[in-house]
Amino acid sequence: MATYIEPRVLKGFRDSMPQAEIARKGLIDSIESSFKSFGFVPIDTPCLEYAEILLGKGGGETEKQVYRFKDNGGRDVALRYDLTVPFARFMAEHRAELPLPFKRYHIAKAWRGENTQRGRYREFIQCDFDIVGSPGPAADFEILLVLKNTLEPICGGGVKIHFNHRGLFNRFLARLGLTDKSVEVLRTVDKLAKIGTQQTLDLLAVNAGDKANQIINYIEAKGTFEERLGLMTEAAGGSCPESECLARIYSFMKDTGSQDSFILDPSITRGLDYYTGIVYETLLNDMPEIGSVGSGGRYDNLVGLYTKPNSAEQVGGVGASIGIDRLIAALESLGRLNEKATYSMAAIACVREEDAGLGQALAGKLRKEGIPCEVFADAAKLPKQYMLAEKKGIKWLIIPGENSFTGGAGSAVSDSGTFTVRDLSARDNRELKAAELVQFLNSQKNSG
Amino acid sequence: MATYIEPRVLKGFRDSMPQAEIARKGLIDSIESSFKSFGFVPIDTPCLEYAEILLGKGGGETEKQVYRFKDNGGRDVALRYDLTVPFARFMAEHRAELPLPFKRYHIAKAWRGENTQRGRYREFIQCDFDIVGSPGPAADFEILLVLKNTLEPICGGGVKIHFNHRGLFNRFLARLGLTDKSVEVLRTVDKLAKIGTQQTLDLLAVNAGDKANQIINYIEAKGTFEERLGLMTEAAGGSCPESECLARIYSFMKDTGSQDSFILDPSITRGLDYYTGIVYETLLNDMPEIGSVGSGGRYDNLVGLYTKPNSAEQVGGVGASIGIDRLIAALESLGRLNEKATYSMAAIACVREEDAGLGQALAGKLRKEGIPCEVFADAAKLPKQYMLAEKKGIKWLIIPGENSFTGGAGSAVSDSGTFTVRDLSARDNRELKAAELVQFLNSQKNSG
Repeated sequence: MATYIEPRVLKGFRDSMPQAEIARKGLIDSIESSFKSFGFVPIDTPCLEYAEILLGKGGGETEKQVYRFKDNGGRDVALRYDLTVPFARFMAEHRAELPLPFKRYHIAKAWRGENTQRGRYREFIQCDFDIVGSPGPAADFEILLVLKNTLEPICGGGVKIHFNHRGLFNRFLARLGLTDKSVEVLRTVDKLAKIGTQQTLDLLAVNAGDKANQIINYIEAKGTFEERLGLMTEAAGGSCPESECLARIYSFMKDTGSQDSFILDPSITRGLDYYTGIVYETLLNDMPEIGSVGSGGRYDNLVGLYTKPNSAEQVGGVGASIGIDRLIAALESLGRLNEKATYSMAAIACVREEDAGLGQALAGKLRKEGIPCEVFADAAKLPKQYMLAEKKGIKWLIIPGENSFTGGAGSAVSDSGTFTVRDLSARDNRELKAAELVQFLNSQKNSG
Repeated sequence: MATYIEPRVLKGFRDSMPQAEIARKGLIDSIESSFKSFGFVPIDTPCLEYAEILLGKGGGETEKQVYRFKDNGGRDVALRYDLTVPFARFMAEHRAELPLPFKRYHIAKAWRGENTQRGRYREFIQCDFDIVGSPGPAADFEILLVLKNTLEPICGGGVKIHFNHRGLFNRFLARLGLTDKSVEVLRTVDKLAKIGTQQTLDLLAVNAGDKANQIINYIEAKGTFEERLGLMTEAAGGSCPESECLARIYSFMKDTGSQDSFILDPSITRGLDYYTGIVYETLLNDMPEIGSVGSGGRYDNLVGLYTKPNSAEQVGGVGASIGIDRLIAALESLGRLNEKATYSMAAIACVREEDAGLGQALAGKLRKEGIPCEVFADAAKLPKQYMLAEKKGIKWLIIPGENSFTGGAGSAVSDSGTFTVRDLSARDNRELKAAELVQFLNSQKNSG
């Protein structure tokens, strides 16, 4: 009757298999716990919005990549391509309902029809967190601290967060008479780590002429935090609000004993135009070559586009984005990704199909102790059930004996009957009574 | 410079504000924990798929509601309108990689351009869980048990899960000579709870003629489980695999002591054509009028459309869907929704902006104890900070005194200095030293 349709997904899209999804969810749980502990709250926005809302500022590259279409009501709509633009619209719309400063996080999918040859996906997860309405260095520092405290436990070997201040850089460029060229210069500087000193110098010369060397000296400043800040402040024409902001952030780092995870790096500029204050990128100590896994900065006004021209309303903020897909790739390469294919710690084998209810009753006792446990429903030879449990990655298989289950409501498990408990990794059996079994698995909860 | 764009969302779409999102996430966490404890694993699939994949079986109502368009590569694509069709495609594509039985859950968004006047949203969350590849009553029962164990702790007042067997109903209709009319009859029967006996009878008469009365007697069967099953079995022509399946499921219910949450209800048929075995709906004891919050059934073949015509491959399964939006609406009406606007238990007030680092150091000690704590970054008069904390729903505000912070790296908090700890709901202050403060808030963790 039915015509055959080949099962396949669109280019640049993927299914997430259980093992990958368990790893991803574990990572996201850990990130969310950290956000929550700092008092960030979650929001959500629609995946689909008016195209004019999403593309108002856009044009160029972005516009070409966006999934945009007419809906059945003839509206010009698009799938969100990031979480920043919808957040701007959200803040403009709900500003009056939210006490400032407002600290939100949003972990959700976005879509771009990018060239998939670069190993990019067209559907991806964004993970953003921001503090809006708190203009001082304390909020800047909090975002940096959240980045560090969130990523370090996940990554193992520690992180190095490179930070800089765009405003200070701009003062330096102004002194060089290069204010007009600042966008081009900042974009070139951003490439230093990727293309090296000589090529950066050549590219800088195009816009900065004979001042290219001074810029290189600036962005390659070495030494302690104080030494670097000293050089940068001097180049900017002396102490100024931006240099004081950096000094204050550093004193906060020392107050929390976190300074070793941070490095003042004048070559960090971030490509995006909207940053106006501090900017930062996060490298993994064990795999810096994979690039930044957490980046962001301070921006002056989030809601401009959605605020009436004469409105005094401005909402500035500071935020960062954690690159979940890149983080997963790094952890996988480092062999540190949780590779579980199951949440179950134990399974109850099926010896007689009519015992499934009693099996569930026993499993219920384990679940109450916080031991995830499944019940095999289909009778099959035991070696086949061993194999199924192993394939699923379950460590303990509980095999009911002749008299393990007495049957009958309420008295699910006999006190005298024993169960064989098989350790599937060690291929090793032990005989335990029901009460001992619960106790034993409880004691194994945190091992392996 | 910028043109003003009115901030608004599409009709039928909504932002989720922090309070709503915290409630929704809490609900989903609780549902997921239950799924995990039974050994279900998560998967994910793309939100966007080839239209032919999603609509192969569709047509009619569904097709008109789907967001379908040509992407930039000219592909005919659509946003998924449920999680069942993508799961069918997923199973057909990955069957060989997955050990059967496969128990998966998927909680994610789907989209339909429905008429919003009925209070429906065009973007909504689906929550599905299924066991595929386990044909017996043990899997049927497990889905029912998961429904009960997941929903009862969330809902408070308990649930009643009404279940039935479509196959048994069909045997009865065959004996009445109404096999040809079974689709129409089942759809009419499904309306009984909504339209009452008389109207159902009138509607049934259209297709069943003078047999309408026998059908009404069947679907209104009263008595204990055994009495109902007895009547239904008799009407179906005596004991058969379907009646045995129901009897077995009931014995599993008794083995787990869960029988009081279930009711054999011959009027439950579920509108959808693809169910072939047991079917069920879940009503809240405290608010049955809101309708089913968890429904599903057994189907014979999930992957048919995506399997080559001559393939012997069949993947049957049994599953259910939890209506998260409806559940939230019910809990809200019942006053049982978690109405928190924050995860923070405490906040540290800002007395001097330069103390933000020391504030974070103290907050770090609290976070280590599992006490979410935020640090206010901006100096303002204390009453204003009380108000901010109250608006956010934070219970404890920690106000540093003159000598609370000694300053300097490592020695963040002075041993002798005291903090004022204000209970914002009781408007009541106490003075505590740093160590006492950690201890005190720890003791308050599980109260209120």
